Amino acid sequence: MPVYKAPLRDMKFLLNEVFDYPGHYQRLASGANASPDIVDAILTECGRFCEEVLSPLYQSGDEQGCTLTDGEVTTPDGYKAAYQQYAEGGWQGLSAPEEFGGQGLPASMGLLKQEMMGTANWSFSMYPGLSLGAMNTIFLHGSDDQKHTYLTPLTEGRWAGTMCLTEPQCGTDLGQVKTKAEPQADGSYKLTGTKIFISSGDHDLTENIVHIVLARLPDAPKGTRGISLFIVPKFMPADGANGSGVGARNGVSCGSLEKKMGIKASATCVINFDGATGFLIGPENEGLNCMFTFMNTARIGTAIQGVGPAELSYQWALDYARERRSMRALSGKKEPDQVADALIHHGDVRRMLLTQKAIAEGGRAMLYYAARLADHMVEGHSEGDLEKAERYDDKLGFLTPILKGFLTEMGCEAANLGMQVFGGHGYIREHGMEQIVRDTRIATLYEGTTGIQALDLLGRKVLLMTQGGAVREFTLKVANFARKQLTDKRLRPFAVELLKLTAQWNLLTVRVMLAARKDRDVVSAAAYDFLMYSGYVTMAYMWLRQSAVAVDKLSNGGEESEAFYQAKLATAEFYYERLLPRAQSHATSMLSPTASLMQLEDEHMAFTG
Amino acid sequence: MPVYKAPLRDMKFLLNEVFDYPGHYQRLASGANASPDIVDAILTECGRFCEEVLSPLYQSGDEQGCTLTDGEVTTPDGYKAAYQQYAEGGWQGLSAPEEFGGQGLPASMGLLKQEMMGTANWSFSMYPGLSLGAMNTIFLHGSDDQKHTYLTPLTEGRWAGTMCLTEPQCGTDLGQVKTKAEPQADGSYKLTGTKIFISSGDHDLTENIVHIVLARLPDAPKGTRGISLFIVPKFMPADGANGSGVGARNGVSCGSLEKKMGIKASATCVINFDGATGFLIGPENEGLNCMFTFMNTARIGTAIQGVGPAELSYQWALDYARERRSMRALSGKKEPDQVADALIHHGDVRRMLLTQKAIAEGGRAMLYYAARLADHMVEGHSEGDLEKAERYDDKLGFLTPILKGFLTEMGCEAANLGMQVFGGHGYIREHGMEQIVRDTRIATLYEGTTGIQALDLLGRKVLLMTQGGAVREFTLKVANFARKQLTDKRLRPFAVELLKLTAQWNLLTVRVMLAARKDRDVVSAAAYDFLMYSGYVTMAYMWLRQSAVAVDKLSNGGEESEAFYQAKLATAEFYYERLLPRAQSHATSMLSPTASLMQLEDEHMAFTG
Repeated sequence: MPVYKAPLRDMKFLLNEVFDYPGHYQRLASGANASPDIVDAILTECGRFCEEVLSPLYQSGDEQGCTLTDGEVTTPDGYKAAYQQYAEGGWQGLSAPEEFGGQGLPASMGLLKQEMMGTANWSFSMYPGLSLGAMNTIFLHGSDDQKHTYLTPLTEGRWAGTMCLTEPQCGTDLGQVKTKAEPQADGSYKLTGTKIFISSGDHDLTENIVHIVLARLPDAPKGTRGISLFIVPKFMPADGANGSGVGARNGVSCGSLEKKMGIKASATCVINFDGATGFLIGPENEGLNCMFTFMNTARIGTAIQGVGPAELSYQWALDYARERRSMRALSGKKEPDQVADALIHHGDVRRMLLTQKAIAEGGRAMLYYAARLADHMVEGHSEGDLEKAERYDDKLGFLTPILKGFLTEMGCEAANLGMQVFGGHGYIREHGMEQIVRDTRIATLYEGTTGIQALDLLGRKVLLMTQGGAVREFTLKVANFARKQLTDKRLRPFAVELLKLTAQWNLLTVRVMLAARKDRDVVSAAAYDFLMYSGYVTMAYMWLRQSAVAVDKLSNGGEESEAFYQAKLATAEFYYERLLPRAQSHATSMLSPTASLMQLEDEHMAFTG
Repeated sequence: MPVYKAPLRDMKFLLNEVFDYPGHYQRLASGANASPDIVDAILTECGRFCEEVLSPLYQSGDEQGCTLTDGEVTTPDGYKAAYQQYAEGGWQGLSAPEEFGGQGLPASMGLLKQEMMGTANWSFSMYPGLSLGAMNTIFLHGSDDQKHTYLTPLTEGRWAGTMCLTEPQCGTDLGQVKTKAEPQADGSYKLTGTKIFISSGDHDLTENIVHIVLARLPDAPKGTRGISLFIVPKFMPADGANGSGVGARNGVSCGSLEKKMGIKASATCVINFDGATGFLIGPENEGLNCMFTFMNTARIGTAIQGVGPAELSYQWALDYARERRSMRALSGKKEPDQVADALIHHGDVRRMLLTQKAIAEGGRAMLYYAARLADHMVEGHSEGDLEKAERYDDKLGFLTPILKGFLTEMGCEAANLGMQVFGGHGYIREHGMEQIVRDTRIATLYEGTTGIQALDLLGRKVLLMTQGGAVREFTLKVANFARKQLTDKRLRPFAVELLKLTAQWNLLTVRVMLAARKDRDVVSAAAYDFLMYSGYVTMAYMWLRQSAVAVDKLSNGGEESEAFYQAKLATAEFYYERLLPRAQSHATSMLSPTASLMQLEDEHMAFTG
């Protein structure tokens, strides 16, 4: 069974050489303890945990899945012990405030951890991942009492959390939420309703589970403006020996587990609230706003699921391509003493591997680029500087649909290519490649489908909120950087191409904006292509950033890792030559008329039956 | 549970209106009985069988899978009864020679049947599908005795067949086959070795299974030139009451069943030959040639797996998009009385549905276009006119890698889009969408991966065998057709675009050919992009063919199915505007230098561990 290897060299390259995280951390209050050697030690230790503890549970967890017996969910063998190690290692509180038992490190450190855990074992990583969502919500919107009660056990990982948003009739459309919350004399509420698709909705990893639930107060306005947010614990909190303990069972139960294509070790629950006791968090009827405060950060978390599978399937496909022998290379025998050449000598196999590599490393760079903004956003909140928090959230808000939408689509492509490298063997479960494809496939669906990300980017962030300003601001930064690289002969072709693309991106934005004034359908018709175009250009920027560092290091000579930098340049070249051209097909498609798309009558879309 | 509806309207449109199958059948000896009303009756009856018998077993078969107990494979509940109906209906012999109990209809009729069966239930359709491979091989290369013994029970469906090619060390590289065949005094052979990935290798549907096996005679030359072909029955044939009966069990056994991502109701077996009795078929050491005689026809069979899933997932996604309500259309409320608009009113959902529709219908047209050539090829063989058979096989040989490679890739895209239309529900097994994705995923892997198809097309068919002539010949036909459509105002934009593409296709071929003279790696580096480019252009030709008929019918007025033709034109427009632009990104990529792809040292491709 293949195992995950933490790509520490690439991670440190991005952190220390490309994005100057040491300098960035020095400027952050929470970065005081994040000196390079501490960061290094944390990455190494986290990598070891992921390689040795989480990776070996990847396939067995899929095979076994979760089970629901007498209303209680059991996770696959080994998950509880692994979670125990995770909690005892203090990993859940890595980026959490020290006052609640956390280590107070920058938010980006938490994302690095999530990346490694998610790559080694996405299903496992969802349990603590969902808790982080609950922690952020309580930290930002909870009363002092609520923080006191819930944040410490959540930070310590003794308790876990969930986010209970959608219902059978809702999907993305949360305005259709029906769950009712009735006020009680003691200030609490009784919640009644059914939530679906609740990740980590029930499990045996922690002594308690804290549900964050969207529900309606009596007489609340219809639609999204009538939704409030509640804390509903599985067991009522009680003062225990080490802080919060658990008391009576609340009226929350797991009705069933979904049978899914993948992430089978992650419990996806139907959660029933039968007059369950809940506590209002945040202002009445502002539940959606409260829930979405950390949406951009959460979406980076999901974007990780584009990068992780690309990395994992690349690692395994590369190993296989080195070992498996088939046919001879077209340019002549490469291993004449062997019965055939290894797969890695075939151009088309290299095309697939380099596509995976370009996606994994280019995508990782996009994550780390955005994570710096998330650090500033979180710092704004910690300092109570809401203006600062919002400013950085806006910057982040432009990038997150690109990261979430584009990277998860690319992650699926990379995972499928990894499977393709294995040929027919890729389809066989024991090799693990098909599991990566199945697990990854959820990423373009949950936390807002690709289509929703695309509408958020083009309709909301670019057109409605900034009239193109978000693109102008970002491309200005990109173009400034690109211009500085024009003088280097290796970087010049990339920089020239990127400069063209920044101009084109603005032009496309204006053209879509003008077209949309006459025809509102243009926005939804163009959104997907606009998203993908934006993703390819953003990734091109990341490859230029990495290339610039590589050229710099190589020109200083005597580098022990010369091969590493040469490989970066080769991968950048591959990306610019063989993947980036796709941006042009998206540019062409997005400007097409909407007639063929919108005018075909529903009843004429098929003539069967 | 959703069900399959046979798209008879579209099938008849292609057969009768676009490709003039009635005229084509009149010119075929085997077409004497294929009058339009007979074809119509067969399609209707086959569609009914697929809708009522095969479709309901689609999900249950996946859920249950096959089991191996005491060396015997059991298919899922209902499969045996369905197969019984299939055999009793005479479906297996539809295109088989009458002298062996078949109906003697043209080969294309068999493909129409396979398309419907494969769309309703791909796993089921593989059992009779593999038998067809064995039947073709015996028909072409078997002795009279062998034909007498095997063809009748195979044609009647009382027996089934397999193709035993690959082994654990082989994959595509059949030169590495090790299975041994030792001559016996009675003229038979004893076969010893292990074959893997044997579809329908064992099952409970028929009383006997006839394995067609690649093996080496003692002292055979190394590599592909030392491989011979053998018939190895599971039970030795014996004269029975109704022709061939079965006698003693042969030394063939199923060692294990593969656990796969999908097509779980299809038994994929490890087959062990332990001194099994076999009979040489065809000349010694020419086994690969014999095996590959019908390769092009077989590959159309696999190409069907691109079209079927696109059709099925389109049908189900369309139903869902009509029923499920979420959000409001950007251009204003479409269903003001409802809580939200149906998904089908959202531009991005329509983009996904129309992509599926364009792939399903454009791909179907590609199949039916090629199937006419297959009819002529088969007729050549039936008439003993090998020159004719080869001429049509060459025409077909240019198209089959495009059909198999491009359509199976597009089928995966279409299936994934269908899942995407369902949002998170697409990931849940009960809706069936994720099963289509899993089942379809094998299509780009078996019968030669996409990479192998791409090399076959560019390296073999285009460059080596015809020095670009295959492209010239095909594009000439396309361009001639396109030129005739220039005068119609609705067709002109398509025709102009297609004319540009035919010229570009030739230009690209020449440029790749010249580049390959200096750098052999160009061929494998460019092959995938060349394949996909070829696919998009071929599909564009099919959409112009369909559009030309639509315009013609509409201009004649009074058509009861005006909406059908309008929908064809809208879909063609969608294809030309929003999918065809991708051809240009492939054109750019294929001409990129090979340095970034080929020069990165193997050991520098990753820096982990």
